[in-house]
Amino acid sequence: MHLTNQSIKEADRIFRLNLINSITGIKPGNLIGSISENGDENLAIFSSVVHLGSSPPLLGFIVRPEGDVRRHTLENLLSKKVYTINQIGESFIDKAHYTSVKFEAHESEFEQCQLTPEYVEGFEAPFVKESALKMGLEFREILPLMNGTQMVVGEIVHLIVDDKAVAKNGYLDLSEINSIGISGLNTYYRLEKISSFPYARKEELPEFNKG
Amino acid sequence: MHLTNQSIKEADRIFRLNLINSITGIKPGNLIGSISENGDENLAIFSSVVHLGSSPPLLGFIVRPEGDVRRHTLENLLSKKVYTINQIGESFIDKAHYTSVKFEAHESEFEQCQLTPEYVEGFEAPFVKESALKMGLEFREILPLMNGTQMVVGEIVHLIVDDKAVAKNGYLDLSEINSIGISGLNTYYRLEKISSFPYARKEELPEFNKG
Repeated sequence: MHLTNQSIKEADRIFRLNLINSITGIKPGNLIGSISENGDENLAIFSSVVHLGSSPPLLGFIVRPEGDVRRHTLENLLSKKVYTINQIGESFIDKAHYTSVKFEAHESEFEQCQLTPEYVEGFEAPFVKESALKMGLEFREILPLMNGTQMVVGEIVHLIVDDKAVAKNGYLDLSEINSIGISGLNTYYRLEKISSFPYARKEELPEFNKG
Repeated sequence: MHLTNQSIKEADRIFRLNLINSITGIKPGNLIGSISENGDENLAIFSSVVHLGSSPPLLGFIVRPEGDVRRHTLENLLSKKVYTINQIGESFIDKAHYTSVKFEAHESEFEQCQLTPEYVEGFEAPFVKESALKMGLEFREILPLMNGTQMVVGEIVHLIVDDKAVAKNGYLDLSEINSIGISGLNTYYRLEKISSFPYARKEELPEFNKG
């Protein structure tokens, strides 16, 4: 199959949506927790969380255009300046998926989807108790992109993770925390570690497998 | 383990680098192909490719600060306005990983890592023949982030994928193309599909598993 920009444009809308949402490859699954000025807790699934830097520790994620969807997460984090990112584990994929239902602002996805809000002293946004890797972030900047989406950038101020998942060198074992991956809009994958390579140096190029 | 911004800052540099590069969860593995004004082909591994929109079909990726690393990919795509994104398959993980070696500009990663450049008529950037999902993109915009990284945005003008991997509704089967995921800087994961849910509607909330 060879599609051009013209044939992508002319494709059925749902076909295009599903295909283009799948082609970047596997995506991380995270729940973003926030709280409104009124104290309404919000939780939403995102597959666009991306590493931006380690010092300071910055993460980004993409929010869809105004009008397209209700954007409680964005409204909350712009007003409270804090939010949480909680990695989705295999045991609560179904609950995480259904946070994407269009609930009313006063209906908490925590309650509707049977997930448990948890707080860290001095930090206003709710974490997800069920998650094995949770981060509290302070909002830093927001960048408008050409198609009306925006990139939200935040700095990690709390990082809570099971000791047993972190190796001495800092590497995290994603299978130890039963982390999952997302493809497209609704398909979930288990992760199986297959290989690990050293930092790539020219003088240590291996003999490659013959393809 | 509960780290705060202060304890992250004071952690050993390598520990911090490995940990913060791991905490977003699984990341997609892609090779970005480009070509210089002189005709030097370049290929580089990226784990930050992110979906931005389907209509027009836009993808983004993050490039590191100037000075940190040589940025042949960025220089090439800014001068030629085109580049390719090629999904990494399990059969050439080792070759893909070693494109991160600091080769000289005139040394092609295609040649050094034994991958095969392939061209589409009328499109200047090289694709990776071995990849089962290849995209040709035109550069659209670049956004500076607060930490010196930049986000590059491009529009898909060619999408080449095995027919058998695309379902009628547009969904892509990542295991059909042996797509892999990356954790941190050097660990590779195989993907195993475990569940798929319908579009989440309020009137169709399921009975959740008791966690």
